[in-house]
Amino acid sequence: MPDLVSERIRCKDLRGKVTSVENAARLIQDGMSVGVCSDLLPFCRALEKEGREGRDLQIHLWSGVAILQADRILGKTGTIKRRIGQQTLLRKPINTRQVQYLDTPLGSFYPAIRAGEFGSLDVAILEAVSITKEGNLIPAYRLHDMPNFAQAAGRVIVQLNTAYPTHFEGMHDVYIPGDPPKRKSIPISCIDDRAGTPYIPLNPDKILAIYLSDEPEPIDADDSVDKTSAAIASHLLAFLRKEVAQGKLPPSLLPMEIGLGMIPTAVMKAFENAEFESLEFYSAVLNDGLLGLLSRRKVRAASGTGFFLSPRGEKHLLENLHEYHKKVVFRPVEIADCPEVIMRLGVLALNGAIEADIYGNVNSSHIMNGDIVSGVGGAVDFAMNAYLSVILLPSTAKGGNISCIVPMTSHVDIPEHGVDLLVTEQGVADLRGLVPKERADKIIRLCAHPDYRPILREYFQRALKEAGGHEPQLPDEALSFHSRFLKTGSMKLTGGK
Amino acid sequence: MPDLVSERIRCKDLRGKVTSVENAARLIQDGMSVGVCSDLLPFCRALEKEGREGRDLQIHLWSGVAILQADRILGKTGTIKRRIGQQTLLRKPINTRQVQYLDTPLGSFYPAIRAGEFGSLDVAILEAVSITKEGNLIPAYRLHDMPNFAQAAGRVIVQLNTAYPTHFEGMHDVYIPGDPPKRKSIPISCIDDRAGTPYIPLNPDKILAIYLSDEPEPIDADDSVDKTSAAIASHLLAFLRKEVAQGKLPPSLLPMEIGLGMIPTAVMKAFENAEFESLEFYSAVLNDGLLGLLSRRKVRAASGTGFFLSPRGEKHLLENLHEYHKKVVFRPVEIADCPEVIMRLGVLALNGAIEADIYGNVNSSHIMNGDIVSGVGGAVDFAMNAYLSVILLPSTAKGGNISCIVPMTSHVDIPEHGVDLLVTEQGVADLRGLVPKERADKIIRLCAHPDYRPILREYFQRALKEAGGHEPQLPDEALSFHSRFLKTGSMKLTGGK
Repeated sequence: MPDLVSERIRCKDLRGKVTSVENAARLIQDGMSVGVCSDLLPFCRALEKEGREGRDLQIHLWSGVAILQADRILGKTGTIKRRIGQQTLLRKPINTRQVQYLDTPLGSFYPAIRAGEFGSLDVAILEAVSITKEGNLIPAYRLHDMPNFAQAAGRVIVQLNTAYPTHFEGMHDVYIPGDPPKRKSIPISCIDDRAGTPYIPLNPDKILAIYLSDEPEPIDADDSVDKTSAAIASHLLAFLRKEVAQGKLPPSLLPMEIGLGMIPTAVMKAFENAEFESLEFYSAVLNDGLLGLLSRRKVRAASGTGFFLSPRGEKHLLENLHEYHKKVVFRPVEIADCPEVIMRLGVLALNGAIEADIYGNVNSSHIMNGDIVSGVGGAVDFAMNAYLSVILLPSTAKGGNISCIVPMTSHVDIPEHGVDLLVTEQGVADLRGLVPKERADKIIRLCAHPDYRPILREYFQRALKEAGGHEPQLPDEALSFHSRFLKTGSMKLTGGK
Repeated sequence: MPDLVSERIRCKDLRGKVTSVENAARLIQDGMSVGVCSDLLPFCRALEKEGREGRDLQIHLWSGVAILQADRILGKTGTIKRRIGQQTLLRKPINTRQVQYLDTPLGSFYPAIRAGEFGSLDVAILEAVSITKEGNLIPAYRLHDMPNFAQAAGRVIVQLNTAYPTHFEGMHDVYIPGDPPKRKSIPISCIDDRAGTPYIPLNPDKILAIYLSDEPEPIDADDSVDKTSAAIASHLLAFLRKEVAQGKLPPSLLPMEIGLGMIPTAVMKAFENAEFESLEFYSAVLNDGLLGLLSRRKVRAASGTGFFLSPRGEKHLLENLHEYHKKVVFRPVEIADCPEVIMRLGVLALNGAIEADIYGNVNSSHIMNGDIVSGVGGAVDFAMNAYLSVILLPSTAKGGNISCIVPMTSHVDIPEHGVDLLVTEQGVADLRGLVPKERADKIIRLCAHPDYRPILREYFQRALKEAGGHEPQLPDEALSFHSRFLKTGSMKLTGGK
């Protein structure tokens, strides 16, 4: 252990700060705002234990990325009072209102932190594979919001993760913009441009404690793909092929944004077997599928806040780190989700959704009557500023009892104007250049499930006759699909009547 | 007239293209896409006459700014088949579906034009006060989307307006970004930075015809302010004062965006009598109120696509042009509404709205059951990328029969995450850092009209009990306020029951 410490902590003064994870967790006080940038399993378990053993411990937890295990561990025991940023696995305690959740698009989250909108960040827990002579941090394959939290936090605790090699050094590009009136242009015009430092700048005086972990922290992901997702991916690629053939997109496309889940997995697998070469990714999330494309040498370069990898994916990354080192750059969430850069690069934004309405408005966060599924994340920033904003979703959910195409979404995250293309397993609706009436016709015809087309069409025709002119809706019935599902367990008429 | 021609058209080869406005209007063919960047009264009247006199003439009309008179004149006679961009006075024929309207946020309108989303632009009608030796155009006080249309259009017709002096030369900064993958950073870090040319670059071969006009074209605006608007402005300024006192905003604030109408007029008048000095504006619209502030020397600099002025305002501008010349810069709409620049400058976005819901979602374009009022314009780009996004609206409309605070808006243009501050004549709800439940409580308490507070609170309390957890809505009742108004003429319960 002492060898590891001196090898990994090049700043001698900091070596004395090494302590146990239990001691580190004890530094967290009731009521503190704590920033966590990845799962940090040993720390979360220790913190959870503190709470379980009777200490009053309710914190405000900040994270701009989905910290799946951390939310799950701390969410169970009531340690999180308020959660700020992006979440996916904390939905239960949020929807029972044990946890107050402040959702925010990531493009404006970090400027809001600097402006003090959420109060001050007491402590940030950061992960590093090594610490430089000056006390700066070299992270592993998750940069996420560590640079912002290192800047914002009063004090810092470091998880020095020896399960990962130190050769990640050089893959990070840490740049944080200034604030108005002194904010400058972000000097990134190409996905692999470098604008900042290869480490997280950190005033070593901020470091309260360092604990060692030798536990890798992959996520719980698999690479299964169902028929629906495969069909969605296939429609998307056929569309992209057509755009390239018509000269509307370059043969190697434009930098792509993609997330996590079965549909993204299907899309990446479809690219594995497709003719596209020299692909580029400018995404918050880098997923297992990217590794598949990297290993097939189909990727020119990729930029993201970090990898979200299955155990198998993590193993593959570590084994091929030398080769991928020069192709992947990790950026702070603030840059990975920055509207300015997204628009400049001309990103093809590939986002999922819970539901879309007949006019193209998209709900990516809430279901039915207001339960949250996940935060809005970068979806709205990407969609509004993309060169081509694509929404990928199945036409139905819950065994066909939910139509993901509805008259009116029960919540709007991406307004109709931020959606160029809607893709379901039924087909593709290219909405560019269309007025609402034309969009509705196309979405119902090409994207809705055949079981729901008649009742959607009936609604739309009646709205055209009885309601307003430009984008007609019947206030008494616009949310009737949702209402029917809540009452009968199905959006189908036969379920309800 | 010949003297005027040689004085104003410095490019000799172009002088032979001078013709009558009637001849110019005859160049427009049925089915053409025509770009119009301001009212161009002589041309619109001539075109309308063409249609009225029996020629088949239905065009696609493009404009990214509200061309009030042009829409009114051409909308009446069915000359417009399809309208693309921003509109306000074409709502009647749009809502009766005589005109197909394609609404689009202005930040992405021009990249979409270059990508060919709307097909090709056959002819653009541009206004100039003079033409340079090289054939480039010097506009008056409306630059608007002329640079983009000059670039996109196959052919160009010029309205040479001799009612305006030529000294506008030097006030325009014409910069059009490239497209991905070659788009670069927009070199504007301060509202009066200059990035482009002081004229509209134009290949003179594109010019089909030039006609002369000696008719000024102010808009139909007045400076009246009612009690409600004055109260809204007063609440806003009190809030800004508090922010300055707390060190959250600089004493001269940050660059402001503001629109047209009674509330913006009230805000500008409030600034006339306030202590703020060296104000800056980065806005699409520059209004009469800005002249009031300029004349009181309260403005350091202002940037906009052009002035929208009453006859009195126009007279004042022309009389003081020499003084204001150095303080005002006109930019293309694409730059004035550009998310990149808005975020960099840290704009205080002051936008109006039709209604907001209890969680802060904002509808700025549609009423009740789908009739459009105006296009979304720059509102969503400004709101999503502003340093502080403020929505200003009265708490009621239609003599109190409409509550502008509703359980759920009937359309969403600006999702809740793009709204920092909601201001009505009742008060200010500062929504920063709040979760949905807290936002609802504050909006109902501070912004809703007392007549509607009890039924909004009753809805919210019941939704908390009966509906989903994070942002609860009752699908059967979320749009019940709208439904009640449509049935009874009032959102009040007493009107309906």
